[in-house]
Amino acid sequence: MTVRVDDVRAAAERIAGRVRRTPVIEVAPGLVFKLELLQHTGSFKPRGAFNRLLVAKERGELTGQGIVAASGGNAGLAAAYAARELGVPARIFVPVNAPAPKVAKLRTLDAEVVQVGNEYAEAYQAAVEARDEGDALLLHAYDQPEVVAGQGTIGLELLEQVGSFDTVLVAVGGGGLIAGIATAIGDSAQVVGVEPELSATLHRALEAGEPVDGPVGGVAADSLGARRLGDLAFAAVRENGVRSLLVDEEAIVAARNELWHEYHLAVEHGAAVTYAALKSGVYRPADGERVVVVVCGANTDPATLT
Amino acid sequence: MTVRVDDVRAAAERIAGRVRRTPVIEVAPGLVFKLELLQHTGSFKPRGAFNRLLVAKERGELTGQGIVAASGGNAGLAAAYAARELGVPARIFVPVNAPAPKVAKLRTLDAEVVQVGNEYAEAYQAAVEARDEGDALLLHAYDQPEVVAGQGTIGLELLEQVGSFDTVLVAVGGGGLIAGIATAIGDSAQVVGVEPELSATLHRALEAGEPVDGPVGGVAADSLGARRLGDLAFAAVRENGVRSLLVDEEAIVAARNELWHEYHLAVEHGAAVTYAALKSGVYRPADGERVVVVVCGANTDPATLT
Repeated sequence: MTVRVDDVRAAAERIAGRVRRTPVIEVAPGLVFKLELLQHTGSFKPRGAFNRLLVAKERGELTGQGIVAASGGNAGLAAAYAARELGVPARIFVPVNAPAPKVAKLRTLDAEVVQVGNEYAEAYQAAVEARDEGDALLLHAYDQPEVVAGQGTIGLELLEQVGSFDTVLVAVGGGGLIAGIATAIGDSAQVVGVEPELSATLHRALEAGEPVDGPVGGVAADSLGARRLGDLAFAAVRENGVRSLLVDEEAIVAARNELWHEYHLAVEHGAAVTYAALKSGVYRPADGERVVVVVCGANTDPATLT
Repeated sequence: MTVRVDDVRAAAERIAGRVRRTPVIEVAPGLVFKLELLQHTGSFKPRGAFNRLLVAKERGELTGQGIVAASGGNAGLAAAYAARELGVPARIFVPVNAPAPKVAKLRTLDAEVVQVGNEYAEAYQAAVEARDEGDALLLHAYDQPEVVAGQGTIGLELLEQVGSFDTVLVAVGGGGLIAGIATAIGDSAQVVGVEPELSATLHRALEAGEPVDGPVGGVAADSLGARRLGDLAFAAVRENGVRSLLVDEEAIVAARNELWHEYHLAVEHGAAVTYAALKSGVYRPADGERVVVVVCGANTDPATLT
């Protein structure tokens, strides 16, 4: 299964008015930030969540049982938010060791939080079982076509907002965001994935020729710590010739601090990897190259900015 | 002396490329934020600083002695930044009790920091004397025509970026920002000033029929704590029928926290007063009214966001 640009266009129409059209800012000549951290719930995830839920609603698949999802992070917040906005219940499965503030935040969005298992995989399995036992809709964090198409609406906005640009740098975890953006942008610009050395799903998939499981760790693991790249993401990055760049922990922390001190953006570590690639020289733009950096999440403790 | 819209238009041409065209975002239907906190140095002040310095440069008044200014806050940062960008030295006068981090930040912008006196008025007097002893240019924090015209470029951008809107809420300290915006916007929308109850320069001036000295205090005093409204500001607000709304300390703190938790913007207290007016009900938009909130500064310790 592959997501097509028409799917992304349809998603854009479908979710219009539900998500914020986040602005861009040219912070320096040739360097543009897409401020997706200003999206509802502080990350890009509501785009995909709304698209998945609204497609299901059109098909009569969104019942009074609402949705189930597994995530203690951005995907869970987005799932809870989208469900609440559409007036259906959300059950969010998180590991028993999920941080209390994240559980509390999910509850403020009216979600029922189910704490189960010691790691994400167990919470996900419980969500799948809950889906199978009733007729709730399962919202995956990245590997569903409607989710990928929803995230891709960022790419369509970039084409409208920025006009001509050469390159867009996108953070990679499970790959839903980069798959969507690459699909939306096609040949109009090169799409480059950036991921932490310690959570490198895309890098591993490109090396192995297919998504493979691997270790998860580092400062950005809370948002980019998927164990493997999604199959839809792999298809999209192969079709669009997307590369993977790796950044180390030090570069991520330094970039996050600089985003605050220089640009007054308080972002989560996972959202700093793209700027880290530029600042550390892992990505070196050519003279006159116009680069877009997607700044995709702000669910962070601002007290940790130094 | 009055600032005219043509002065603002000339300022916009003059400072183009020197300042960031900051984006707007419609965060909810009819509610637009102007994200001026993303300006260089984290506040709107570089607009006026660049305009003042560039006008002086055109007239041959910007010499190798550069500029002098008095401010330990946003105006000082902007002065130092603009001077550095234009390749002239900056001497910034601050009280001896100015916080060490602010002094350090001025020095990272290559400014010579002169610590003198126990309060702002003494530092300002020292800056005036330094100007009189040589041929450095004095950059005032708000009460100079070029400064007002520079800040007004925000108003021109709003007219281009937002299209039709009814109201713009602007924080008031010395009044340079609201004077410029009111001049730029004229009859196109109503301009409403918002200030802390504990630092209410505009409110006092409107009551007294002229700018008068008054107390300075409260959580927003570091950015809005001018002792009296500028004369240029008074002329502009009278000419454009600008009102003053007062917000209390609790409303400012609550609005600043909500700007972080709901919108992922980490702002200084002074920049939260406009949103505070909305949230506390001090300003109640009519049905269908489109309101722009200028979010004008981010020089804050993010650890204080709770």
